[in-house]
Amino acid sequence: MRLPNYIKDLEEWKSEFSFSTDIKIRFSETDMFGHVNNVSPFIYFEEARTDYFNELQYLLNDSSGSIPIVADLQCDYHKELYFGNTLKLYVKVNSTGNSSLDIHYLGINENDEICLTGRGALVNIDPQTKKAVPLDDRLKEKMLETKSS
Amino acid sequence: MRLPNYIKDLEEWKSEFSFSTDIKIRFSETDMFGHVNNVSPFIYFEEARTDYFNELQYLLNDSSGSIPIVADLQCDYHKELYFGNTLKLYVKVNSTGNSSLDIHYLGINENDEICLTGRGALVNIDPQTKKAVPLDDRLKEKMLETKSS
Amino acid sequence: MRLPNYIKDLEEWKSEFSFSTDIKIRFSETDMFGHVNNVSPFIYFEEARTDYFNELQYLLNDSSGSIPIVADLQCDYHKELYFGNTLKLYVKVNSTGNSSLDIHYLGINENDEICLTGRGALVNIDPQTKKAVPLDDRLKEKMLETKSS
Amino acid sequence: MRLPNYIKDLEEWKSEFSFSTDIKIRFSETDMFGHVNNVSPFIYFEEARTDYFNELQYLLNDSSGSIPIVADLQCDYHKELYFGNTLKLYVKVNSTGNSSLDIHYLGINENDEICLTGRGALVNIDPQTKKAVPLDDRLKEKMLETKSS
Repeated sequence: MRLPNYIKDLEEWKSEFSFSTDIKIRFSETDMFGHVNNVSPFIYFEEARTDYFNELQYLLNDSSGSIPIVADLQCDYHKELYFGNTLKLYVKVNSTGNSSLDIHYLGINENDEICLTGRGALVNIDPQTKKAVPLDDRLKEKMLETKSS
Repeated sequence: MRLPNYIKDLEEWKSEFSFSTDIKIRFSETDMFGHVNNVSPFIYFEEARTDYFNELQYLLNDSSGSIPIVADLQCDYHKELYFGNTLKLYVKVNSTGNSSLDIHYLGINENDEICLTGRGALVNIDPQTKKAVPLDDRLKEKMLETKSS
Repeated sequence: MRLPNYIKDLEEWKSEFSFSTDIKIRFSETDMFGHVNNVSPFIYFEEARTDYFNELQYLLNDSSGSIPIVADLQCDYHKELYFGNTLKLYVKVNSTGNSSLDIHYLGINENDEICLTGRGALVNIDPQTKKAVPLDDRLKEKMLETKSS
Repeated sequence: MRLPNYIKDLEEWKSEFSFSTDIKIRFSETDMFGHVNNVSPFIYFEEARTDYFNELQYLLNDSSGSIPIVADLQCDYHKELYFGNTLKLYVKVNSTGNSSLDIHYLGINENDEICLTGRGALVNIDPQTKKAVPLDDRLKEKMLETKSS
């Protein structure tokens, strides 16, 4: 497997994930090539991310009114996915900034093969002013704890 | 062609459309059966509808704050669509209520064949109270004019 | 609740469903009106339908090579859905033809409220010739059994 | 603007694009945050890519039977997009390998502001054996010509 530049040591990188969500691949997410379309993994990344945030009670529309928006996203497609495949999608916060999060993704099929890896930064902003809003320190600690656990 | 119950006379029904929009079928909208997935025509209906509203200056978020929401939708798939097909999607307001619209759709491919027909009701509501809000009479007139022209 | 014409008696109609699947509403399936977009329920209908077929071992690409394609689809939106809602989607075969199925749908939220109802016909075809292919009688029996159980 | 690592000199990088396609942002591609969802730009990248291939007559299902599949994709979101925005999406082949292409993307709104940049590799494979298939030399030349013109 060709290692993307956001993975230094694959075994170590894998060992840092603990949260995962089971993704159900939908028929409409395949394309005429017979496999899952290249757009669909980004739907799955978002699903895993919102599930993870939900577990951490990092609400998408909290009382402070700030929202996390995506600054960048990348996905490496290591193995084709098909309708009927089982996909376990792991997610971790790899590092935190003042108002941003670097989030990593790992997708494994039913044969324990790596199908997808990815990462992307989120920035916490005020939707009115579009200015970055600092993230709560306890939230960031909880996120990094998950990584080390 | 089997006539859906919302079409009494096909030639008359067709003749009442004047507004159309050219739909670009996207690769991601096909599925593993090789054709356009059954979900995609509803994306196209919405695109034609919003283009039509835009032309009529019926804004989706106007100053009155009311928004049109979909009450029901139906689509008849008369001919499979494929990536690379040209789709001209006609839309008309078939009838109007106090705060609702019955909208009809007709999709034609590059060989002038009917691929899709459909219809659906919209209701104009106040997004806070969820109550129906009457539609402007001049707007309704303009909509029905388009039909008869 | 306004009854669509494919429901004669709501209580009887509801009682005939037994198979259901839990739909996870994804963030990307909402729209700028804040609720689930009108296109998304058709994704959910397909998910419930393929799950149901899977349970009945009605494979989408079986050895006979025939495939079920959608002839028509309709959805009634009885209550807005939001990200975070739980949606249980029931599906039943309401009636069968020689090579076609009339499939009905019922979507219930976490408060046991009806959010979605719908129906649509599938036709079993040979993807090469596009001709209808008769459905297996035992399969049709199994489908109608599920309804009556 | 923060420069992604696939852009060395922004002005030079921009000057190398010549092909573009006009993307129509669809209402269903927004989300409850009011803007275009983070998944949607990958739909737009694919649309621009297939339009570009079409112009070059690099067919997605050619007689050789080989197909281009996505090896990786990344997107940087420089400015939020909204329903109603005009998006011109430029695409170029940045470099070619034996059987692979590195494709770059640039999305500009109606105020000539950079909203999206991105890149991703495609690999030309035999869909049966999943083995890489060399790309035609004349095709690769044509692709790089477009870049320099």
